[in-house]
Amino acid sequence: MKLFDSHVAPNPRRVRMFLAEKGIKLETHPVDIGGGENRRPEFLAMNPLGKVPVLELDDGRYVAESLAICEYFEEIQPEPSLIGADALERATIRMWERRMELEVMRWLLGAFINSSEFFKGRVKQVPAFADVCREMMSERLTWLEGELTGRDYVAGERFSIADITLFCTLDFGNMVGEQYEADLFPAVARWHRRVAARPSAAA
Amino acid sequence: MKLFDSHVAPNPRRVRMFLAEKGIKLETHPVDIGGGENRRPEFLAMNPLGKVPVLELDDGRYVAESLAICEYFEEIQPEPSLIGADALERATIRMWERRMELEVMRWLLGAFINSSEFFKGRVKQVPAFADVCREMMSERLTWLEGELTGRDYVAGERFSIADITLFCTLDFGNMVGEQYEADLFPAVARWHRRVAARPSAAA
Repeated sequence: MKLFDSHVAPNPRRVRMFLAEKGIKLETHPVDIGGGENRRPEFLAMNPLGKVPVLELDDGRYVAESLAICEYFEEIQPEPSLIGADALERATIRMWERRMELEVMRWLLGAFINSSEFFKGRVKQVPAFADVCREMMSERLTWLEGELTGRDYVAGERFSIADITLFCTLDFGNMVGEQYEADLFPAVARWHRRVAARPSAAA
Repeated sequence: MKLFDSHVAPNPRRVRMFLAEKGIKLETHPVDIGGGENRRPEFLAMNPLGKVPVLELDDGRYVAESLAICEYFEEIQPEPSLIGADALERATIRMWERRMELEVMRWLLGAFINSSEFFKGRVKQVPAFADVCREMMSERLTWLEGELTGRDYVAGERFSIADITLFCTLDFGNMVGEQYEADLFPAVARWHRRVAARPSAAA
């Protein structure tokens, strides 16, 4: 298997961190997003949407979409579990993972995509929508602050894929100027330091 | 178990259609979204994000997020399979489901939320972003038209949750004035009619 990867985007990092937690090592191919490698025909043949990461399987088939890739590895190597040990725990973790993705990551990426220099000319940016995204991000952080007060991980007692998604989201924000104010969200910041201390955070 | 449901939103319909395909009948409670029932404290105690659907379990716990709910039912009643029979088929179906959700549903809902009368005063609407969403929707439909030419279902040979997500998305668009032009996308329209003919489409 081979992972088509990038170190400048949050989604491939979710997969790398997931694999690091599992102790799975894969051959990787770094995709030069800045140089448009993901828009070239060879890449589009693997993923017509031009997005990373993409997993190449040994039979030559491809799986795109971070979550689909992570769920695949959870199935072929269940331990240590990052999505849950039984149906109900998996339901809870998947709920939290989706909340992190759709309610936090979505707004942070919306702010970035609609205002950054990188996306100028690549997409039709709407700066007023970037502002809405920042307001939503702040609202969601306020909610998360309450959730993370008094518990260690996003989905409960266990470190899970929901933590990976939130961590890669907030770290990406810090990298591109969409950082949260740690002073205003101390429980989030504490959680952030806790996850940053894991060896997988270096992935 | 009980499903907190709504007939005016696309996400609860995904779950109803999924359950109908499985032949699972549940007690449902219709949530009056127009009247703000989903913003009242009793509802927020179940799902602090105020969104439907929510599944109430027999032990009094709650699972929100359509996909987490569907994955839960797939686990407790695997047949007929809507997410796949083995790890690789599940990876493929999950990839396609996410594409339908993140690459099609997202843009259609973005157009609706940022321009409809219903959301006036409920969110800060950005009409210019609605326009971008419509352009993206059209681009994604063009891609889908190619994908659906010569195959019966979104993820391949088998009807799956990816079809449910796309179907509920396009039907919702038809309902709220964000319909696609069937003449321009004949393969999509053919697929749409094929899925609309399933008994579960009435759910």
